[in-house]
This record gives sequence, structure tokens and C-alpha cells, in this order.
Amino acid sequence: MEGVDHLADERKKAEFNVEAMKIVWAGSQHNLEVSNRISKLVADDPAFRKDDRTMLPRKELFKNTLRKAAYAWKRINELRLSEEEASKLRFYVDETAYTDLHWGMFIPAIKGQGTDEQQRKWLPLAYKMQIIGCYAQTELGHGSNVQGLETTATFDPHTDEFVIHSPTLTSSKWWPGGLGKVSTHAVTYARLIIDGKDHGVHGFIVQLRSLEDHRPLPGITVGDIGMKFGNGAYNTMDNGVLRFDHVRIPRNQMLMKVSQVTREGKYKQSDVPRQLVYGTMVYVRQRIVADASCYLSRAVCIATRYSAVRRQFGSQNGGPETQVIDYKTQQSRLFPLLASAYAFRFVGEWLEWLYTDVMQRLQANDFSTLPEAHACTAGLKSLTTSVTADGIEECRKLCGGHGYLCTSGLPELFAVYVPACTYEGDNIVLLLQVARFLMKTVSQIGTGKQPVGTIAYMGRIEHLMQCRCNVQRGFAELSADLVEAAVAHCQLIVVSKFIEKLQQDIPGEGVKQQLEALCGIYYLSLLHKHQGDFLATSYLTPKQSALANDQLRALYSKVRPNAIALVDAFNYSDHFLSSILGRYDGNVYPKLYEAAWKDPLNESVVPDGYHEYVRPLLKQQLHTARL
Amino acid sequence: MEGVDHLADERKKAEFNVEAMKIVWAGSQHNLEVSNRISKLVADDPAFRKDDRTMLPRKELFKNTLRKAAYAWKRINELRLSEEEASKLRFYVDETAYTDLHWGMFIPAIKGQGTDEQQRKWLPLAYKMQIIGCYAQTELGHGSNVQGLETTATFDPHTDEFVIHSPTLTSSKWWPGGLGKVSTHAVTYARLIIDGKDHGVHGFIVQLRSLEDHRPLPGITVGDIGMKFGNGAYNTMDNGVLRFDHVRIPRNQMLMKVSQVTREGKYKQSDVPRQLVYGTMVYVRQRIVADASCYLSRAVCIATRYSAVRRQFGSQNGGPETQVIDYKTQQSRLFPLLASAYAFRFVGEWLEWLYTDVMQRLQANDFSTLPEAHACTAGLKSLTTSVTADGIEECRKLCGGHGYLCTSGLPELFAVYVPACTYEGDNIVLLLQVARFLMKTVSQIGTGKQPVGTIAYMGRIEHLMQCRCNVQRGFAELSADLVEAAVAHCQLIVVSKFIEKLQQDIPGEGVKQQLEALCGIYYLSLLHKHQGDFLATSYLTPKQSALANDQLRALYSKVRPNAIALVDAFNYSDHFLSSILGRYDGNVYPKLYEAAWKDPLNESVVPDGYHEYVRPLLKQQLHTARL
Repeated sequence: MEGVDHLADERKKAEFNVEAMKIVWAGSQHNLEVSNRISKLVADDPAFRKDDRTMLPRKELFKNTLRKAAYAWKRINELRLSEEEASKLRFYVDETAYTDLHWGMFIPAIKGQGTDEQQRKWLPLAYKMQIIGCYAQTELGHGSNVQGLETTATFDPHTDEFVIHSPTLTSSKWWPGGLGKVSTHAVTYARLIIDGKDHGVHGFIVQLRSLEDHRPLPGITVGDIGMKFGNGAYNTMDNGVLRFDHVRIPRNQMLMKVSQVTREGKYKQSDVPRQLVYGTMVYVRQRIVADASCYLSRAVCIATRYSAVRRQFGSQNGGPETQVIDYKTQQSRLFPLLASAYAFRFVGEWLEWLYTDVMQRLQANDFSTLPEAHACTAGLKSLTTSVTADGIEECRKLCGGHGYLCTSGLPELFAVYVPACTYEGDNIVLLLQVARFLMKTVSQIGTGKQPVGTIAYMGRIEHLMQCRCNVQRGFAELSADLVEAAVAHCQLIVVSKFIEKLQQDIPGEGVKQQLEALCGIYYLSLLHKHQGDFLATSYLTPKQSALANDQLRALYSKVRPNAIALVDAFNYSDHFLSSILGRYDGNVYPKLYEAAWKDPLNESVVPDGYHEYVRPLLKQQLHTARL
Repeated sequence: MEGVDHLADERKKAEFNVEAMKIVWAGSQHNLEVSNRISKLVADDPAFRKDDRTMLPRKELFKNTLRKAAYAWKRINELRLSEEEASKLRFYVDETAYTDLHWGMFIPAIKGQGTDEQQRKWLPLAYKMQIIGCYAQTELGHGSNVQGLETTATFDPHTDEFVIHSPTLTSSKWWPGGLGKVSTHAVTYARLIIDGKDHGVHGFIVQLRSLEDHRPLPGITVGDIGMKFGNGAYNTMDNGVLRFDHVRIPRNQMLMKVSQVTREGKYKQSDVPRQLVYGTMVYVRQRIVADASCYLSRAVCIATRYSAVRRQFGSQNGGPETQVIDYKTQQSRLFPLLASAYAFRFVGEWLEWLYTDVMQRLQANDFSTLPEAHACTAGLKSLTTSVTADGIEECRKLCGGHGYLCTSGLPELFAVYVPACTYEGDNIVLLLQVARFLMKTVSQIGTGKQPVGTIAYMGRIEHLMQCRCNVQRGFAELSADLVEAAVAHCQLIVVSKFIEKLQQDIPGEGVKQQLEALCGIYYLSLLHKHQGDFLATSYLTPKQSALANDQLRALYSKVRPNAIALVDAFNYSDHFLSSILGRYDGNVYPKLYEAAWKDPLNESVVPDGYHEYVRPLLKQQLHTARL
């Protein structure tokens, strides 16, 4: 059945122009063209195969990642790829590696926090990968509380150096990706101590390994922190541990864009606004929101295609059984996730615009929108990564037993994704920040300060201003409830941006209608899930809530015939999905069967260990068995 | 700091008798004594170490499991352990293996479905492990729909044999544990065909491998289905694929307790009631509910202890930071899971009683309580395994970044547990069965048929009888809502049994008070989560719902000082927990640091692959780099 499209009938059912939807998903015709070209380049190159990744032991896995990273770099140079194309290539290679930190954290940190002179010195080396860098912030004892980091950088005026030191076990750097085995340098965060005075946490460029033989420099203890969740997954990354024993670096390796230490040991602020630093944070989190829609859509694509291939129960007169995707229980779990994937895509697009807007304002010394932008990105990072992590696992469950096999692609997708809920701001900590921002905004209503952007609704709602706060307890006491409020606020942003997207002109036959149905599924499923909040505030009557649920069911039926085409519009190659269940052609069973025999356990018919540990049991004459 | 109890202060805070609570958790003084003794036996024996499990590649991992299984069997015989002790030993060895299926499915299947003669022939061989068996039901194309299995067993009257055959690719047996590499025999489910007539699915004992050289017998193709989710985890098990090419077995290897095929090829039912078969199903699912409380409590124990060790933010005047467990956001996620672990323990105890009761009735030809018992176990299996799977992952998230390390124990616990949501009845399919049972019961109210047991409440509530059903659509159309109703019904059972437990005499200072607080947390957190259902039916007013939430917060504060002691009462050894974050002594950071260096990547300072794939980058003179 090779070459047959088992999902052809499903594709014929589509009521919209799939090619037009691909452009909507990609963001533009240009994006789609680049994605198509680079994705094919990667998929067609056997050097980038990854279907064996979950079977490799750690050392082989890691070596293979080093190989791919070097090969990708070679291809990027040979083909003279633009920055956009190179970044797409790394995306489609789809293997977490030290290069992610080098390009995604080390270079941006130097750009964002280094002086012009520092940038001129370090960036050319980094761009050519003549040095490889990572971002050493998190310590064994401190993650979320960055101000509590313990590593010290003590200024020595005699030698004009900083002495970097790990005073306690918990001050060991722990988690930085690329640190364990590869990086030659690290942007290292440490408490700046001058003359006994603690000036708080600052960034320093520290060389870790010799550029000649790659051995750790004197005073440096560095290694990998060990296996992480899942097969393959994040184990391709050398998350590292690092201790400093009085390591000396020149004074000019402190990143001095915002604050400086002079030759005399004087600490001073530059005239560059500190707020620019937050711009970097907004940028990184905005990227994470964009990534969320990629990961969620991959899982949804796999689960949707397999739900159309899999049949179970309901055979009539010996005919075929019912496709699993036709069960309402399946639709009520799968379609809200499909809708979320699209919703996150559009809110991600909007955040990208917001970032550009904020940066332009910051350059013009306008800091007015920064708090709102900061709350938006923090909240949306939290919401989209939590929903995506849970959504990938839900998609795995929607694939039944076969979703538990590594060849389904879903276990690795889940394991590699879940750290997103923790890194760049723990999701709960971020929601508390949003909650604090919301409470502050509410407290300022009536003082004449008009809420803007995503919190404008607070100004519009008259009765909010009439509310009397009868809270008797503090913020901390009510924090669990405040987190719920923050989530609701973020969901409102996602819904608003989805609706705004629909107000634009969207070409392609039937495309807008499908997006309208998905938007309806997105907000109605949220309304159903949180109906208690709407009922408790009498925003909805029980009757209205039931009607909304009826409407939701009707939308499931509307989306059903378009489901396969809606996931085809993500435009993912079989190489990228790396899932037998999610194959474009739906040829699931023969390929599952074929793949099984590749497991190392099947190298021999009689397993290693049989003679020592199985045969003696079978051949025993027991005298003592009381069982 | 070796030997210091970092959690000693926490333990001093406990307001109840921990030893008495251990007895409540274990079920009896006797159970506690056996658990203590066998758990220590396993923990003290280096042959049972498992802290390296997540680092082993598949073949080594599997061989190691074979070694442990053989060694466990040796110890069981040497020590002349009773059946109870042997089963506890396998529990504490805590490594999924072919023996689980041999003891847990193969032997029970022969006992439940074999004639006395068949039991006399096969059971002694199985009890001595002179044969090793598995349970070959699920196929590549059919899991939930057992009646749709495709493997055939065609009676050949000329030779008095059955011909077992796999007519299609999707008829390949797929998933059975112990099948892939070890089992010599399988209870195999196949459609019985006599003279062209299909009599549906029956069980057959089929030999798969030679008892001499372990090679597959003629006509048998068998192997492992490949890697599954997670490191270590279920990859210690040889879940298998199996195809039959006209394999012949004697007629007397069909399991004939309930139906028989005579020498002449006549198919007939025996006088043994078919309902006895359901008794086995009730038994297996009742065991799964008991297991759920074990798995959830392990995760909760790890997360609770680590939440007391971990400190972040809130340092005042340079003092220690706040313990994470003191944050309300942490409590509102952790304590409902702690309460659920206890709730599931007690509902599991009750189910064990229910099983005994049903079996006694079945022996006496009283089938009246079977449908309700069947619905109870199906629903509780679904509820407890879903909550446990999600709960383990929530506990992992509650441990922040460090929960993502394999040494936290949580990734493997999650990966090894999640199949429980699928095997022995997919959780959604089971809830639909419960929903069907509930709808049937409701439709019979008023006909004089009095609902009993866990559905007695339906008879008591007058207004339910006055309800007019205005449903215009079928069961399938509303199935997503019916699933919600089934979940609510099952939660009611759990709450009721927790309350019934509290009505018993429970000795030990403060023990009952703690359980009362946990029971309150259990039902109030459910009420908060599902407040929409209570508000929509006007069962609660918004004000009452808010008051319930206040009460919930108060209970969190009440449980807080007892949290560590409440998880100590589970009585898990460090060996069993296999988690650095969950260590009894709380000595987390030094042990995390120590463990990191054992990763294979740290065997050399400069990683394998450096010379080929890293050094050339660092040393390159690029001519083409445009990045």
C-alpha cells in the first residue's frame, strides 16, 4: 500500500482552500515559501534523520547531536543561508543543542548588556563560532529568585580583575544548556562585590575551557548534570554544573552597558535606561509563545490524523468500524486543542508586533507601555506553555495505547517541551506577577489613570469602579485565587486577538469561516470549563451556559469534515513530525510493524540474558516452592 | 551533613501519632509489619539497586531486569516466603517485568477460564515457572473493542486441533507484556471458527517458544514492539508483537470452563455461570485502584518533602528564604493531591471488600449486585488512574526545574504509570459504560426497581423522579457531557467512602482529626473545581461557593504543619522512592551534586565527538559566513 493516501477521502471533505490556510498559518506567502524550501532541504538529507533518536544511549545520542550541529553549520555556510533561513534550518533540524543557547542566549546577552566596545570584541568571535557560549544564571539553590544567586564576583583593585567564586554548594551553576560539555565561554551571573559591598547580580563573560584542548581552565569544575525526562528529548543537550574556585577575569569582562565598575573600583550607572533590559525578556518570552503554537500544532496534527485512521467499535453488517475522530468524546478533547493551536499562533503574531512596538518606544524613551507589555508576555508565556504541555499529553492519550510508543513521536515531544513551563520564568511565579499587575491596575481605577492596551476593558466597565474591596487578607493568602484571575485575564487576551484577526481581510475560499468556527470552539470550550466563574458572577444564567454548550457541540460537527485539512495547513513534513501515527499518508499499521523490528532487543531472537537468567528458571527442579 | 535529618524540625511539628497513621495507611498492624520487613529486605540488598536504571540502554536495561526477576525468585524460594510476602517483595523490587504478567494475568486467566483438568495440568508448571506465560489479547488494530479481534482459531475435526492464524496485519498481537522476548506460552484470544461459523472470541493456551532453546516454534513470528515513553520505566518490559501462520494446538488447549468444543466439533455452553468471568475483571480493576493510591502517594511524598527543603524568595534581613511549601499556590496544588492519595487508599480498601462480597454472591448464584459492582470498579479505575497520572506530573512540576531530572524519580514514575489510563479498559470508554449504567438506572426509577449500593442516592432523591427528560439527541451525541456525569458519580463514591471511613473507630492521637482535614480538602477542592455544576443546578449559591473556598484555605493551614508526617506515614524507604528530592533526610543538594557525576557523559572531561565535531568549528577560518 506504499504510495497510497489513506487519508485522501478525508482531504476531499475539506470545505476551504488549504493552500490559502497554509499562508495564514505561516504568516505570509514569503514565510511559507522559505519554510517549504528549508523544510525539504532538511527532510531530504539523511544526515538529519532522527527516527533512531529515542533508541540511542546518552553518549551516542550526544555525539550524534554534535555531529548534526557541525553539519548544519557547514550547510548554512555552503548554501550561504540568510539569518532567517539559518534559523529556519535549525528549527527543522529539530534537535535541542548547545547552539540554541549560543545563538539564543549568549549572543543576545552580549548584545543587550554589553557596551559597544564589548560587542565589537566578542560578537564577531561568537558569530563565527570561534568561541561557543552559554548563559550561566540558574544555580542549584536558586532559579526563580534571581536576586538570591550566591556566586560572587569580587573586584580586586590591585590587579584590575574580578574574582569569580562559588562560596557554597548551592551556589553551583546548575541547568545552563551547552555548559556541561561544549561551551568555551559563559555569560555568568554573580553578585558584584566591591570593597565588601554587595551591588547585586550582574553578568560577566567568563572563559571556561581552553581553546586548545577543551579542558576546563584552572579553578573551573564543570560537567553534565545527568539524564533528564524522556528518551532522546532534552538529553541531546549538555545541561551543566559549574563551580568556580577563585577564577580571575579582567575587569572589562563585566557586561557594562547599564552599570559599570571603574578602574578605581567605583560602581556607577550608565545613562542607558535600565528598562532596555526588560525588552530582551519580552523578546525571549514572545518567542516562547510562538514556539508553543508550533509544539501544540505538531501534537494536534499527529492525534487528528491518527484519529481519522484508527477505527474502533460500531461496525454495522460487517462494514468498517467507526473512525475514532467521529466520537463526540474524542472531538470534545481534540478540537479545543486544534482551536488553541490556531489561537496561540495568532496571539504569538500579535506579541511579535507588541515587542517591536515596545522597542521603538523604549528607543524614544517612552516607557509607558512597558509594564503592560511585560505583564502580557509573562502571562501569555505561562498560559500557552501550560496548555501546550498538557495538550501534548492529552494528544498522546487520544492516540490510545499506540501513543505510548516512542515511534508515535508524542512521548519525546512531551518530554522535550515540558521544561518550557519552568524556564524563563516559572509559570506560577509569572501568573503571580500578572496578578500583582492586575491588582495594581484595579487599585488605580478612579485615580484618573486610564488603563491601556489589553487592560483597557477595566476602564470601560463601570461597575468595576463601584466595587468595594472587602478583602481582609493579604495578597499571599489569596494567591491561589489570584492565579485563577490572572489565567482568566490571559485567556481574554488570546480570545480578543483571535477575534481581531478575524476582523482582518483573510483571502481564500472558506478560510475565514473555518477560523471563525475554531475561534468559537476556543472561547466556548473555555466558557464551559470555567462556567462556575460566569455563573457565580451572574454573568451567565444556567440556561445560557447550557445553550453555549449546545453551540459548542454544533461547532464540533462543523469542524469535523475539515479536521484533516486544518492540520495539513500546518505544513509539517513527515520528517519534522517524526511520528508513524501522524504520517501524511495515514499508512500507520504497516509502518508500526516495520519499525518494531529495529529495536535493539530484536537484534537477536533469543535475548541476551536468557542463558543466565531465564533458562535456569525453566529448567529448575524446585524443592522449596510454597507458592 | 551525612546522617543529619534536615526535616527534623518539620517532623516535630506533627500534631498526630505518625506510627498510628502508618497502620491506618497499611490497613492493619500485620500489613505494616510485613511491609516493613520485606521493604527492608529489598532495600538492603545491592542486587536490587535501581538508581542507575534510567541511564541504561535498552538491551542492558532488559538484561538487568531478567537478572533481578531470577534473583527475586531465588530469594522467594530460599526464604520460603508466603504468597503475601512474595507479592510484597515484587512490589518493593519495583521493576515492571514479565513476571507481572505471568503471575497477574496468565495464571489468573487459566484459573478463571480453565476447566479443573486444565488447571491441574497447567498451574503446577506455571507455579514453578517451568513455563512462563503471558496474556495475548490486544492486537495492532483492536484494543478496546475486544469483540473485533481478528486472530482466528479454526477447528480441524480431522486432527482434533485448532489452527491459530493471523489473517491480516492488523490481527498481529501487539502490546502483551512478557511476550516479546521471554514467555514460552500465551493465553491467546482468537475468534473460534467451527465449520465456517464464527463463535466469537475465546481463550487458548498456545506454546510460543521451544523449552529447549527458546527459539520461536514453527509458524510463530514474535518480537519486541520497541521503545516506550520514558527512561527505564516500562522499557524493562518486553511488550511484544506476535503473528501466527497456521499454528496447530490440541483441542484441549482451548480454555473450556464456560464454553466447550467437543471432539465432534460441537460448540456448547457449560453450566458454569458466565458472570464469573466478570468477577476476574472486577478483581483486576480493584487492584489497579489500590495501585493508584501507591503511585500517587509516592509522587506526593517526593513533592511534599522537597517543598519543605526548597526555599525561594522572602528572605528577611538576610535570614533564610521561605520554604516553598508555605506558599498558598503550592499548597493549593499539592494538598488536594495528598488528600486524594488518602481518599484513593480508602476507596481501594472498600473495593477490595466489594470484590469479596460480589464473589461470595456469585458463588451463591446471586447476580443482583454485579452490574453495580462492575460500574463501580470501571468508574473508579478510570477516575483514580487519570487523577494519579495527572497528579504525578503535577508533583513533578511542583518540584520546579529539578523535578525534570531523572534523579528526582518523578519522570520515570510518570512514564511507568500512564499506561494504567489505557490498559484494562481505556478510561473514557469505561466512563461511557458507567454513564450507560447511570442512564439505565435513572430510567428505571419509578418502575419499582430500587437502586442499591452506590446508586442508592438516586432512589432517595425525590425530585430526580420528577425530572422530565427533554433530551432530543442520542447517547452518542451527548457523550462528552455524560462522561462528566460519570466522573461526578465516581467522585461521589470516593467522598462517601472517605466519610464512612471516618465514621469508624480510628485509634492514635490526632489521627482522625488529620484524616478529617484531608477529607475536607478532598471534597472542597472538588467542589471548587466543579463549582459551575453546583451553581448551574442552584445546589449552591455563589456566596456559599465562596465560603466553601474560604474553608478550603483554612484546611490548608491546618494540614501544613502535619504535611511531612502525613507523607512519612506512607512508610516508603529511600530505595523504593528512588528520588533524591524525596529523601527522608532532606539532604537534597549534596546528593544531587554527587549523582550528576555518574552520568556516562562525565566519564571523560572532553566529550566524545569533540575532535570531529566541535574543534573544527572553533578552529575554522570562515570565508562564507554571512550570519
